[in-house]
Amino acid sequence: MNQNEILKNILTRRSIRNYTNQQVSEADLQTILEAAVNAPSGMNYQTWHFTAIQNSEKLADLNKHIKGAFAKSEDKHLQDRGNNDSYCCYYHAPTLIIVSNDPSQWWAPMDCACAMQNMFLMATALGIGSCWINQLGTTCDDEDVRAFITSLGVPANHRVYGCVALGYSPENTTLKAKTIKEGLITIVE
Amino acid sequence: MNQNEILKNILTRRSIRNYTNQQVSEADLQTILEAAVNAPSGMNYQTWHFTAIQNSEKLADLNKHIKGAFAKSEDKHLQDRGNNDSYCCYYHAPTLIIVSNDPSQWWAPMDCACAMQNMFLMATALGIGSCWINQLGTTCDDEDVRAFITSLGVPANHRVYGCVALGYSPENTTLKAKTIKEGLITIVE
Repeated sequence: MNQNEILKNILTRRSIRNYTNQQVSEADLQTILEAAVNAPSGMNYQTWHFTAIQNSEKLADLNKHIKGAFAKSEDKHLQDRGNNDSYCCYYHAPTLIIVSNDPSQWWAPMDCACAMQNMFLMATALGIGSCWINQLGTTCDDEDVRAFITSLGVPANHRVYGCVALGYSPENTTLKAKTIKEGLITIVE
Repeated sequence: MNQNEILKNILTRRSIRNYTNQQVSEADLQTILEAAVNAPSGMNYQTWHFTAIQNSEKLADLNKHIKGAFAKSEDKHLQDRGNNDSYCCYYHAPTLIIVSNDPSQWWAPMDCACAMQNMFLMATALGIGSCWINQLGTTCDDEDVRAFITSLGVPANHRVYGCVALGYSPENTTLKAKTIKEGLITIVE
């Protein structure tokens, strides 16, 4: 295996927050989902579920339900988002993958994160932009949101731990260099 | 970027639970840590810390402290582990990286998992075996364990969310094929 390719893949992944309306192909979506289900999971239980949405009307409906939950919040910042007509929690990406898991195992969020990281890396390798979307993690127990995501296929006993937005950046997008903080590493020899 | 290389890397990663005493080189350890700190983190806060231990005495001491915490547990299974002379929570790997984070952000465990997945993948590309080790996650608040990991360099306000064991498999180790469960994916077109 070419270790330089693997490191380059890891170093060039970025969170993309601006997408064209070009859809991700079915073949690429399948490859990204194959990466997801091959992540490690606690005790190899694989209790997670991946609900991939490529239907723009369903995505718009999902955004509406999430904004509805935000509008009911006591947090002024979330209220403002809920009442902002132009707010789109998934940055108008053409594809969104809801990553959910059975919350009865304490490692459920970490299993989901490993699968999401695999998806971000696979998307990067395919030239597809991606971003971690959190808004469903904090609203999935709102009654309206829950009814909607259940209708999409998210198992009723699952919590959502994150979503992966997927799509293409506009041409000529330049990515900022990532600045790594100092002092994150200690080596004990 | 070669997408087949990236997918192959993701598909060939396995959890390794048997290690030779060949140490991971400093250069490879640095590459694996570079992969870690380039994972995404919530709001790009990078509040995590990576404490890499390559000292076999310190590792043996860590195992002793963890077993001490297990021995005090009310859980019979953990008590048995704590009192089992041959139990080694890190499978005698020559290198262990403690992954910790400030628990005040709810996404702290997921940030750590993304960084850990990057490390597993980078290790795989380097021909180095790896495994997620959980035992410090459940014992890091034991008084003796905490004093010891603080002495190693884990920030006092951090929780440990996992550890990455690193090392080489014995020659002729054959890896089992991974079986992926059915029904993990729903696609909404």
